[in-house]
Amino acid sequence: METTANSLVTVEKSKTSKIDQVDFDNLSFGSTFSDHMLVCDYKNGAWENPKVVPYGPVSLDPSAKIFHYGQSIFEGMKAYKDTEDSTWLFRPLDNHKRLNISAKRLAIPEIPENYFMEGLKTLLKVDEKWIPKNEGSSMYIRPFIFASGNGFHASPANEYKFMICLAPSGAYFSGKVKVLIEEKYSRSANGGVGFAKAGGNYAGQFYPTQLAVEKGYNQVIWTDDNTHEYIEEAGAMNIFVRINDTLITGPTSDRILDGITRKSIIEIAKDENINVEVRKLTVSEVVTAAKDGSLKEMFGAGTAAVISPISGFGYKETDYDLPELKEGFASLLKKRITDIQYNKAEDKFGWRYKL
Amino acid sequence: METTANSLVTVEKSKTSKIDQVDFDNLSFGSTFSDHMLVCDYKNGAWENPKVVPYGPVSLDPSAKIFHYGQSIFEGMKAYKDTEDSTWLFRPLDNHKRLNISAKRLAIPEIPENYFMEGLKTLLKVDEKWIPKNEGSSMYIRPFIFASGNGFHASPANEYKFMICLAPSGAYFSGKVKVLIEEKYSRSANGGVGFAKAGGNYAGQFYPTQLAVEKGYNQVIWTDDNTHEYIEEAGAMNIFVRINDTLITGPTSDRILDGITRKSIIEIAKDENINVEVRKLTVSEVVTAAKDGSLKEMFGAGTAAVISPISGFGYKETDYDLPELKEGFASLLKKRITDIQYNKAEDKFGWRYKL
Ligand SMILES: Cc1ncc(COP(=O)(O)O)c(C=O)c1O
Ligand SMILES: Cc1ncc(COP(=O)(O)O)c(C=O)c1O
Repeated sequence: METTANSLVTVEKSKTSKIDQVDFDNLSFGSTFSDHMLVCDYKNGAWENPKVVPYGPVSLDPSAKIFHYGQSIFEGMKAYKDTEDSTWLFRPLDNHKRLNISAKRLAIPEIPENYFMEGLKTLLKVDEKWIPKNEGSSMYIRPFIFASGNGFHASPANEYKFMICLAPSGAYFSGKVKVLIEEKYSRSANGGVGFAKAGGNYAGQFYPTQLAVEKGYNQVIWTDDNTHEYIEEAGAMNIFVRINDTLITGPTSDRILDGITRKSIIEIAKDENINVEVRKLTVSEVVTAAKDGSLKEMFGAGTAAVISPISGFGYKETDYDLPELKEGFASLLKKRITDIQYNKAEDKFGWRYKL
Repeated sequence: METTANSLVTVEKSKTSKIDQVDFDNLSFGSTFSDHMLVCDYKNGAWENPKVVPYGPVSLDPSAKIFHYGQSIFEGMKAYKDTEDSTWLFRPLDNHKRLNISAKRLAIPEIPENYFMEGLKTLLKVDEKWIPKNEGSSMYIRPFIFASGNGFHASPANEYKFMICLAPSGAYFSGKVKVLIEEKYSRSANGGVGFAKAGGNYAGQFYPTQLAVEKGYNQVIWTDDNTHEYIEEAGAMNIFVRINDTLITGPTSDRILDGITRKSIIEIAKDENINVEVRKLTVSEVVTAAKDGSLKEMFGAGTAAVISPISGFGYKETDYDLPELKEGFASLLKKRITDIQYNKAEDKFGWRYKL
């Protein structure tokens, strides 16, 4: 057991490394894990010191509440290498803030900022050589907290585990994405947990997404659960629509995740003098725009998928194709945000964070 | 490793027993576990044979999808001892059916009926001496399935674990329950997973319930997420309201769990010639009835809590008390259902199931 200069986080190094077994040119998304992980236990009313330990299994009692009551939250971040071999994070403090927003809604104890940031930085330094350098790849970072305390009483656990795992990853989607606008199922309720990155929000999307995939779509676009008339977001992305030269995205609410990519894209678009509207967006106006040709682009925005152009959408048994644009907003905005993330361009917003 | 006559389920007995450490006269709910558990793995597209093994920890990769995407479902059942020392279950095939309804909605592979029933019966026989005999106690049975497959891609897992644990238990609530009718938060969306016993439904209730507990209530009564005008159900119970001599409960929907206690109570009440109405129930009619004195009783109905009389409710900063009834519907119906469960009375409905 080696202790870092920073006494908050202890480090126990793995005796061997799996790095030589990894083909960094052919990484899929989130299925290769680095040599270490961060673990931090909540017991007796307090978070214990975070520890970097060799990546390995977690052992839990079968009555641990995570198995029964879905009490879990997570974050999704990335670390990027620039050409000088420096490592960068993107707005990491916002992920910490959002993790605590999720924690509160799920009755999980909040994690102090220094536990999150020092734990993350120490882990990334220990496994820094795992951060991919090839174009389009990055280190996907998964902080998560789950209920490790025991018992079948349906009430919050008394123990939790905060962990961070690192997954060197390639692209989330291969190619353009065809989406289905949902008319029956929904992902979140008014007054529910949709705005939180709560585990249960994702499991609930799997079945409707499978049905969409069987019909030939890649993703579902969720609509409000009451009327299914408003466009909300996609499985793990917020949604932008370009009608003529206006870029539109729905407002966040207690049903919608406040995406860090989304809010960054709004700022970059404004900086590009694009007319941006954050307002309720109806399915019918998107369908009308698709029919009359004013619908120029649709794309998803999220950390995992970055900016994912949408090639077309299905709605009420009809498919609508979007035009093929060489120089659209999606490609412009994707270049601007990734240039900031990979330290290829000036960061006038102050979003980059050096490891 | 010992194999039962029934070749589907294998049995590996624990070398020691913890039973002598248990005070069966002072059991809390769901926090004492028997010596064995059932484990059944789903791998390569099929459920492997169920195994009864010593109760002990589950080891999972940190990327197991249960930790990230809340892909888990469960059931809640009880086993009852009669005075002749025979063991009884209550409508167990309905729990199996509902587990598979939940499975489908959560994109979890369905479990064959014989795996569920043979696994359950074998486990109960191995730990039969753990079933409490004292009045008001029973063996709480927790079947559950969760995603054990790995990876950070937000999609269904390729591996699952079906398990059953046994918890000899006392009462879920001690005494009468005071409830708060929810005006802001909600537990489920139209087109969501509220009708499934999905883990995530419970975690989402913890924070609003904590807020209610801080105000002096025991439970939240959930209302629809759109208008908050309709009474839906409680945390782990369906809700019945008695106005004058009519017993009213809301219809089930895709937001509400189709409780086995609820549907049994409806049948027993009809058998008692009680006028039962299954129809939408508004908060305002309950408030009006509370004010004019026609609201005679409210109670929750569920496996864990059986029939839980409600002493009063809070709504819009006002508290409404219910009258103290000695011989109400709640006590009559509770006696009738528990008499069937504990084999103290005729079972004209055919609900009892002998182990
Ligand atoms: C439901 C949902 N919406 C949107 C996003 C995009 O958020 P961010 O840009 O912060 O990654 C995510 C995830 O990352 C998500 O899970
Ligand atoms: C949300 C919810 N409603 C109602 C019930 C009652 O159902 P049952 O009578 O089948 O136990 C339960 C659980 O048991 C529940 O979790």
